[in-house]
Amino acid sequence: MNNFTFWNPVRVHFGEGQIEKLKQEIPPGKKIMMLYGGGSIKNNGVYQQVVKALEGYSVVEFSGIEPNPHYETLMNGVEMARSEGVEYLLAVGGGSVIDGTKFVSVAIPFKGNDPWTILSEQAPTEEAIPFGTVLTLPATGSEMNMASVVTKAATKEKRGFMRPELYPQFSILDPTTTYSLPKTQIANGVVDAFVHTTEQYLTRPADAPLQDRFAESLLTTLIQEGPKALALPEDYAVRSNIMWCSTMALNGVIGAGVPQDWATHMIGHEITAEFGLAHGTTLAIVLPSTLRQMKSEKQAKLLQFAERVWNISEGTDSEKIDEAIDKTRGFFEAMGIKTKMSQYDIKPEAIDTMVERLEQKGFVALGENQSITLAKSRAIYEGCL
Amino acid sequence: MNNFTFWNPVRVHFGEGQIEKLKQEIPPGKKIMMLYGGGSIKNNGVYQQVVKALEGYSVVEFSGIEPNPHYETLMNGVEMARSEGVEYLLAVGGGSVIDGTKFVSVAIPFKGNDPWTILSEQAPTEEAIPFGTVLTLPATGSEMNMASVVTKAATKEKRGFMRPELYPQFSILDPTTTYSLPKTQIANGVVDAFVHTTEQYLTRPADAPLQDRFAESLLTTLIQEGPKALALPEDYAVRSNIMWCSTMALNGVIGAGVPQDWATHMIGHEITAEFGLAHGTTLAIVLPSTLRQMKSEKQAKLLQFAERVWNISEGTDSEKIDEAIDKTRGFFEAMGIKTKMSQYDIKPEAIDTMVERLEQKGFVALGENQSITLAKSRAIYEGCL
Repeated sequence: MNNFTFWNPVRVHFGEGQIEKLKQEIPPGKKIMMLYGGGSIKNNGVYQQVVKALEGYSVVEFSGIEPNPHYETLMNGVEMARSEGVEYLLAVGGGSVIDGTKFVSVAIPFKGNDPWTILSEQAPTEEAIPFGTVLTLPATGSEMNMASVVTKAATKEKRGFMRPELYPQFSILDPTTTYSLPKTQIANGVVDAFVHTTEQYLTRPADAPLQDRFAESLLTTLIQEGPKALALPEDYAVRSNIMWCSTMALNGVIGAGVPQDWATHMIGHEITAEFGLAHGTTLAIVLPSTLRQMKSEKQAKLLQFAERVWNISEGTDSEKIDEAIDKTRGFFEAMGIKTKMSQYDIKPEAIDTMVERLEQKGFVALGENQSITLAKSRAIYEGCL
Repeated sequence: MNNFTFWNPVRVHFGEGQIEKLKQEIPPGKKIMMLYGGGSIKNNGVYQQVVKALEGYSVVEFSGIEPNPHYETLMNGVEMARSEGVEYLLAVGGGSVIDGTKFVSVAIPFKGNDPWTILSEQAPTEEAIPFGTVLTLPATGSEMNMASVVTKAATKEKRGFMRPELYPQFSILDPTTTYSLPKTQIANGVVDAFVHTTEQYLTRPADAPLQDRFAESLLTTLIQEGPKALALPEDYAVRSNIMWCSTMALNGVIGAGVPQDWATHMIGHEITAEFGLAHGTTLAIVLPSTLRQMKSEKQAKLLQFAERVWNISEGTDSEKIDEAIDKTRGFFEAMGIKTKMSQYDIKPEAIDTMVERLEQKGFVALGENQSITLAKSRAIYEGCL
């Protein structure tokens, strides 16, 4: 096991009816900015529950945060928060709203000239406006981690940043808020949680059997509950399990002390940046190709994945691994996500641009062994066609 | 899944060489009290490492905290800390030292007349002296939770308390500090972590498959690594895995949203109080008997335990469960712990006293269903003979 520091101070309130805990979490008298997306929370009743729970506070609203939140949009939120004297942020939505709120929280008090440098150059942020979240879309794990990803629409740059001040003060996870989600969003969320797990698990052995089994627990549970979540949208137990899996997949627990990959994410980000595909969809496209390309480096863990997660016991090691990769792709397809770029009209010519973007960002040696060169990234894209 | 709140703000530094992080964790200039046990840390070099890391601080020492720490002893520590103007506590040891330090941290500023009421009546504590830990014995999980158990030697009362101020500010887990532990302490620690897990897992189904699998991950890993920890005392990977399992078994992760039992702990505590047996040893004695007595209420989870943890696939459900309980007892025995009260010269007559003590404490309806009456507790003790 590698040395590690684990610290995650987020207070999670999980379950039906927990939105009313907002009052106990946000100090009285604070001026709040409520941030949300396109307004679906008004149709499913979440908006009304939040407004009710915030009675007595002064609240301004900032809506319109899009999927893969745009820097340009968020800077409007920063401006509004500054001019309104906002003291507390409340994200109500999925990972994009939460990631966007994280950026807003550090951009408001940012002293530098250009807040984009927080993302582009990892400029330090010394302060953050405190914030909490009401999660409505289980997927990214942003509700219980210190990461955020923001896209500059003007240049199609998708950039992430991580720092301790990005931990929410609290997050409220009420599975009933997910009942009205479109199937594609549930499917993308399940794939996102699945691939967050594989990024921390399908690497190389690290004498960390507990972390391995925790990761296998997540994958097995997602495989079991994912299709049920599509078939039974108002099954409380199923939605609870999906929601808790998504959070646990990226809150630091399974990644403590083990190597991490994240190449599939980086390679997928460029598909989103170029073609606007949902993040989860890009992962469903890229992961099988990454695993095939890296089959030899990842052999030991892929074999364990085949045997323990997919219960494959027949065939040579190589055959077992191939079958596991096929089954993984089959699982994504069963969730209703097409897993080939050509199915989204993405042509081979687009690969040059995406590889160039990786190069511009300095992503020339990705993966747990820094062995995914640009040539290998290209091969991974080619395997996605 | 049940509604829950999860919050665990402890910063864990895990791995060889992490003791030097003390300087980064304890604010400069703080007057520190270092608390430890019988002095084994002087023989294995941990004391020297800590002293070196604390160069530049003013440090007083309080040693002699015994296993199942005594209220009487700890009150001496409280007095010393008050008279010395101590501002920060550092526990260096196992669960007893850490539990004791937790009590000291809230007893120092306690305003009530009798600090024992913190334990006996759950008297509120509004303040706590901040504290951190250097763990040297993986077992109780105290290094990453908000619980503490203290014994009043005069009356043999063993009492626990839980509250958020009992979370350490940080805990340092260096597996090499465990190399010199006697085998019995490693064995008791492994059993302790195992039974912490079963208390949160062998209850009733709660539609929480992720928590179930996480618990099974812990049990499987402990079964696999436990005997290796005895055979290979200086195997870093093995000791790392035991240490991390012990922490994860009782830091709130696996217990979030599921019913919890804890009857085996309560029943075992009276064996320690009466006969001084190590905590882990009492759990190894009591658990098999609890599971046999509660076989019908716990049937569904016991069957899952048999199939998933012990890989038992033959026989009727009842036979599978019996075999799983036998294998569990066999595992404890293989760790070198005798699992029958008679092997410790505890006579049937002692049962009356222990049942009376349970009654005095109001423990008349234990277990996840509050169905373990005094008569059932008696039967559990009888099954331990």
